[in-house]
Amino acid sequence: MNWYLQNGKDSDVVISSRVRLARNIENYTFMPKISEEEANKVLQKIKDITPSIGYGLKFINLNDVDDITKVSLVEKHIISPEFAANKNKWGAILINDEENISIMINEEDHIRMQVFSSGLDLENLKNLAIEIDEKLDNLLHYASHEKYGYLTACPTNVGTGMRASVMVHLPALTMTGNINKILNIVNSFGMNIRGIYGEGTQSQGDIYQISNNQTLGLTENDIIKNINTITEKVIQQERMARKYLAKSIDLEDRVYRAYGTLSFATKLSSDECKRLLSYVKLGTDLGIIKELTDSKVAKLYLYNNPANLQKYVGKELDGYERDIKRPEVIKQIINEK
Amino acid sequence: MNWYLQNGKDSDVVISSRVRLARNIENYTFMPKISEEEANKVLQKIKDITPSIGYGLKFINLNDVDDITKVSLVEKHIISPEFAANKNKWGAILINDEENISIMINEEDHIRMQVFSSGLDLENLKNLAIEIDEKLDNLLHYASHEKYGYLTACPTNVGTGMRASVMVHLPALTMTGNINKILNIVNSFGMNIRGIYGEGTQSQGDIYQISNNQTLGLTENDIIKNINTITEKVIQQERMARKYLAKSIDLEDRVYRAYGTLSFATKLSSDECKRLLSYVKLGTDLGIIKELTDSKVAKLYLYNNPANLQKYVGKELDGYERDIKRPEVIKQIINEK
Repeated sequence: MNWYLQNGKDSDVVISSRVRLARNIENYTFMPKISEEEANKVLQKIKDITPSIGYGLKFINLNDVDDITKVSLVEKHIISPEFAANKNKWGAILINDEENISIMINEEDHIRMQVFSSGLDLENLKNLAIEIDEKLDNLLHYASHEKYGYLTACPTNVGTGMRASVMVHLPALTMTGNINKILNIVNSFGMNIRGIYGEGTQSQGDIYQISNNQTLGLTENDIIKNINTITEKVIQQERMARKYLAKSIDLEDRVYRAYGTLSFATKLSSDECKRLLSYVKLGTDLGIIKELTDSKVAKLYLYNNPANLQKYVGKELDGYERDIKRPEVIKQIINEK
Repeated sequence: MNWYLQNGKDSDVVISSRVRLARNIENYTFMPKISEEEANKVLQKIKDITPSIGYGLKFINLNDVDDITKVSLVEKHIISPEFAANKNKWGAILINDEENISIMINEEDHIRMQVFSSGLDLENLKNLAIEIDEKLDNLLHYASHEKYGYLTACPTNVGTGMRASVMVHLPALTMTGNINKILNIVNSFGMNIRGIYGEGTQSQGDIYQISNNQTLGLTENDIIKNINTITEKVIQQERMARKYLAKSIDLEDRVYRAYGTLSFATKLSSDECKRLLSYVKLGTDLGIIKELTDSKVAKLYLYNNPANLQKYVGKELDGYERDIKRPEVIKQIINEK
């Protein structure tokens, strides 16, 4: 099963974990100054070594991926929106069937490796990332600097080139009005906390991404340790808020009303669905809603997204058609055996 | 089965029909000037003849009825709110098991007979009322006047002493905004149209009562004919509005969202429930909602009412307890085989 449909540690609050490494190949011009010729050489070089990397990774030229599939990968956070919209046509992606390893080629750097897991699992992800990283370094030879570490196109990534992040679901902190306090605390610890599609995006359905600011002057272990520490605090606060709310009949009523609307509406926008799912996930995590499994909730989140919805039904749909089709798909998922 | 759980002619729009006769007994002081002694004589007189009337009618002294049962009868429109609140303690009611015949003793008049049916059925009700009326007249001898007809406590009832009414459900006319036009038309034909608990009450859940203004100078047949005519027009208009609305996906969405909330809320006030039921009944009548039968919808309407809810669960509940218990009862009714 794909990682994003699974259930991991602390997954009542932590939806998923991700570790990303930014790398570049020695003796090749960095993005975005690279020429078309050189960029194609990078592609070819990586295509050639793909079988040697292992992990079931397959090389896919971005030109061979249709737009809906591209956006569906963005919705799963497997590739970046910028990469999907890439107009220079020199992009490729290495990906395995489980989709828990994704390596974007010629995104902001020559290599952007990401590993994913459901729940809170940064330690294992870091180990996996480093393991793959060493293989790639042996095969490709990275650009690095004795003092600064790995060199990257953007100076904010120099050093470890590592960004670790977790996606957290914080509906109770939102309901109790304590969310802003938490956001400030996380920021004051040198972490970013922001909407789920990265920088500058708003939270949707009470989901936030916590990630490290700093890539230089810290070891990989420090970065993971810091994020784990702050995430544990956020989990604790969110759970306390849930415990507080769970005492009131109103919470039960709210989550079940959301479930009722989700189950019976026949026209539903993606945004409304996200708001409803936030309550429904909370209700399921708290054991209030017994009609759903965690895996169904994860599926509902996934196929609510416009492109994944179209992948699910196997055809292109405009916005209006999606709002009509979405409730049908939701009912199918809810009623799955 | 009790009439209010059944389904009659045109019951997509007409919930129920009622014919009421106001009568007084010759040589007894009229209400409210009657003395306690005389009032008790009226009670005794009627108690004595009850077996001779037939129809399975039983004599019940209002003093022997607990408050919740009284209010539950009001909610079913079987007795008037004023009668239930009657403080003078000289009231009684003759009622049969089906509850389609109810005779209030010492309400506004010595005798207030009501006969009920689901759907549009005024002609049959009138015949039944007259049949019972003749029996009563033979047994009791009514106060009447050669010129004016039956004499009543309030001059507005003099003459036939008859009021015929239908309860109509007009959600589509409300949604399309044409309801006020219809209310004006009904009024201009010399009919009353008003909220479901009679004069001065507001519509709840888009349910209105249409009844005749006039009791004097018209025959019983004229009254029934007039109400039938105007009701047919209202039915026609409501059905046209439904046909118009049914074309849009939004109606389906609205009725199913209401059904979703009704099915899953865990805290629900009577007023909100009435609003939801209005959509749910519309959806069921239009064949959009297939999960419910007409009889279940009628049951939901009945047991939403505070006193009938308490009768259903068999114990006294305060307002907060009712709002918690109501959703449980709703789920039971929805899931009944």
